Amino acid sequence: MRTLAVDLGERSYPIYIGRRLLERSDLLASRIRGRQVLTVTNETIAPLYLQPLQDALKDYHTRSVVLPDGEQYKTLEVMNRIITALLERRFDRSSTLLALGGGVVGDITGFAAACYQRGVDYIQLPTTLLAQVDSAVGGKTAVNHSLGKNMIGAFHQPRCVVSDTATLDTLPARELSAGLAEVIKYGLIRDPEFFFWLEQNMSRLQRREGEALAHCVQRCCENKAAIVAEDEREGGTRALLNLGHTFGHAIETGLGHGQWLHGEAVAVGMQLAADLSARMGWIAASDRERIESLLLRAGLPIRAPSSLAGERLLELMAVDKKAREGALRLVLLQGIGRAVIAGDYDRSALLATLGGARMATRVA
Amino acid sequence: MRTLAVDLGERSYPIYIGRRLLERSDLLASRIRGRQVLTVTNETIAPLYLQPLQDALKDYHTRSVVLPDGEQYKTLEVMNRIITALLERRFDRSSTLLALGGGVVGDITGFAAACYQRGVDYIQLPTTLLAQVDSAVGGKTAVNHSLGKNMIGAFHQPRCVVSDTATLDTLPARELSAGLAEVIKYGLIRDPEFFFWLEQNMSRLQRREGEALAHCVQRCCENKAAIVAEDEREGGTRALLNLGHTFGHAIETGLGHGQWLHGEAVAVGMQLAADLSARMGWIAASDRERIESLLLRAGLPIRAPSSLAGERLLELMAVDKKAREGALRLVLLQGIGRAVIAGDYDRSALLATLGGARMATRVA
Repeated sequence: MRTLAVDLGERSYPIYIGRRLLERSDLLASRIRGRQVLTVTNETIAPLYLQPLQDALKDYHTRSVVLPDGEQYKTLEVMNRIITALLERRFDRSSTLLALGGGVVGDITGFAAACYQRGVDYIQLPTTLLAQVDSAVGGKTAVNHSLGKNMIGAFHQPRCVVSDTATLDTLPARELSAGLAEVIKYGLIRDPEFFFWLEQNMSRLQRREGEALAHCVQRCCENKAAIVAEDEREGGTRALLNLGHTFGHAIETGLGHGQWLHGEAVAVGMQLAADLSARMGWIAASDRERIESLLLRAGLPIRAPSSLAGERLLELMAVDKKAREGALRLVLLQGIGRAVIAGDYDRSALLATLGGARMATRVA
Repeated sequence: MRTLAVDLGERSYPIYIGRRLLERSDLLASRIRGRQVLTVTNETIAPLYLQPLQDALKDYHTRSVVLPDGEQYKTLEVMNRIITALLERRFDRSSTLLALGGGVVGDITGFAAACYQRGVDYIQLPTTLLAQVDSAVGGKTAVNHSLGKNMIGAFHQPRCVVSDTATLDTLPARELSAGLAEVIKYGLIRDPEFFFWLEQNMSRLQRREGEALAHCVQRCCENKAAIVAEDEREGGTRALLNLGHTFGHAIETGLGHGQWLHGEAVAVGMQLAADLSARMGWIAASDRERIESLLLRAGLPIRAPSSLAGERLLELMAVDKKAREGALRLVLLQGIGRAVIAGDYDRSALLATLGGARMATRVA
C-alpha cells in the first residue's frame, strides 16, 4: 500500500493506494468519527463492491443508497434523495458518507455531505481511474445545472481517499481511457518527466499492469495534492487543473451531459488548448504532435463532435465559470509540463482552432 | 450609524446599523468586489425597497430576482431558481448577491451564494427585526427539507450586514413580536443586564422608538458576533443560540412550515426550556414567571398548539440536528443569562413539560 498526505492544516487527510483496500476496515475505522455510515453508490458498482464494503463495516450502523449510473443523474434533485435518505434514517451531524464509485458518485456524495446539516464527514472510495487520479482528491464537490456543469457545489475535503486499484480490473476500456485523459493532464501542466514516462508506458497502462497503474495513480495524486495544498479554493494555481476543461465543459454541455465521458471531452479540450498554443507559437508544432499522439494511444478522441460548430462552442465556453466578466480566460501551454492561465491569447487564433474543430469529425 | 465587527480572521466583516442605510451606496461599494450584483428579495419587500436600492447601485451591472414571500418557499427548488437566474445572466465567480428581506430571503440567498460556482460573495440587507438581530449575522445559511428545517445548508459568511432600522417601520406587528423572541433569547443565554433592560423597555420597543430599536439591534449583534467569533461552525458555544429552537423546530415541522412564524415557535420553545429547567430546580419558579411575562409582553405565544401532543412533539424533536445518535441534547437554563447544553436532564420532567404543552392552548 502507498500512502500520501494532502496537506491542508486541520483539514489534512491521507490517500491510500493499493489492491483490495476496500476490505481494509482498519483504514476506514481510523478516519470515521461517529457510528452512522451511509454508503452512496450506483447500480453498476453496487453488485461488485457494496457487500464486501458493508461487511468490512459491520461494527457500524450502516445504510446505503444506490443511485442510477450516469452523469445525467448528477443533479440537485438526486442529491436531495441522499439528504432524504439521511433524514429518514435519522442520521445526525456525526455521520459519515462513503462515496463508492466514479466521479459522479464522488461529486454528488461530497456535495450532499457538504450541505447535510451544514456539513458532515465523507470518505472517497473511487472505483474509476478518473476518480482515483483526479476527482476524488481535493475536495471539489458539485452537481450540474441544465445551463452548465458543476455550477452548484462546495469545497469540502474528504476525511480520506481509499483508492483500491483492484477495482480498475472491472473498468470498461472506454472509462480507462477517459481516466488517462486526466493522467496526461498532470504531465502537461506541471510534470514533464511524468509525460515522458507516459509516452514510454502507455501500453502497460492499457494492459492494466498493476505496478504501472499504482505508479500512475500515485504520481497523479502527488501532483494534485501539491496543487491543492497550495491553493485549496482555486484562487490561482489550482485553476491550471482546468486545462482542457473550458473547451471540454462546452462540449459536454453542447452534447447534453452523459453523451461523452468527461475525460473524452477533456482530451479534446487539451488538444484544442495545445493547438491554440501552437498556433501562437507558445509551444512547438512537434509538441502538439506528441500530445495528439499520446491522447490517441490512450484511446481518446482529439476532435470536437461535428455538431458543435466553432461559434456555438465559443458561446458555450462563455458560460464557463472561468469567464470573468466577459473576458474568457483559458489554460494554455507554454511547453509540455508548463501550463499558464491566459487572457492575452490571440482571438483569431482561437477562432481558427475552433473552426478546425468544426470541420473535423470525432476520432473514437 | 453604529458599526460593529464580526471578528473571523480573513472572513471578518462589519455590521452597519442605522436609519436609511439602504440608500448609502458608499457602504455597499466598499464591500462589493466585482461588477455583477444580483439582488434577491420577495414580493412583499420588492415594492418597498428594491428600487431605491437598485438606484444606489447604478454604477454596477444589477439584476434582481423576486421570490414569493413565505417560509414554505425556503426550498432547494426555489434556491435553484436563483442559480438559474445567475446562469441565464452569465454572472461569474466575482458576482455579489444581495439578500434584501427577512430571514427566509437571507438564508436562501446565502445558501445560493455558498453553492454558486462553489461560492460567491453576498451581503445581508435584513428588513425584519428577527433578521437584523439574528439570522443575518453569523453565516449560517440553509433551506428546509420536508423532513426538517434548515437541513440543507452551509456556513458562508456575508461580506457585510447593513441593518436599515427604517425598514422596521413597515414591519407587521406579528413579525416585530417574532423578532423580539430572538432578542429575549440573547438576554436569557448570556446577557442578564440586557434581559433587565428589556423588562424596562419592552413598551418602547413595541412602540418602535428609534433609539430603543437601534440599541436593541446593536446589543443583540454584539452578543451574536461574540459567540460566532468564538465558535464559527457550531462546535460548542454557538449551539447555545439554539435555546428554544429544538422545541421550536419541532412545532414548525409539526404544523407545517409557514403556519407559525419562526420567532413564535422559538418563544414557545424558550418557555418550554424554562419550564423544564424550573421543574428540575435549575432556575427558580420566579425566573420562569419573569420569562413568561416578558414573552407575553412582547406579544408572543407561550404554549404549543393543541394539535401537537407531548409524544408527537418529542418524536419531532428527535429528528432535530442537535440529536446526537439518539441522545437528545437540549439548551436549558441555569439562570437568566446562563444557558447550558444538557443531555443530563430528567426525562420525566421533560415529559411533564411536554404534557403541559399538550393540554394548553395557544395564547396569541
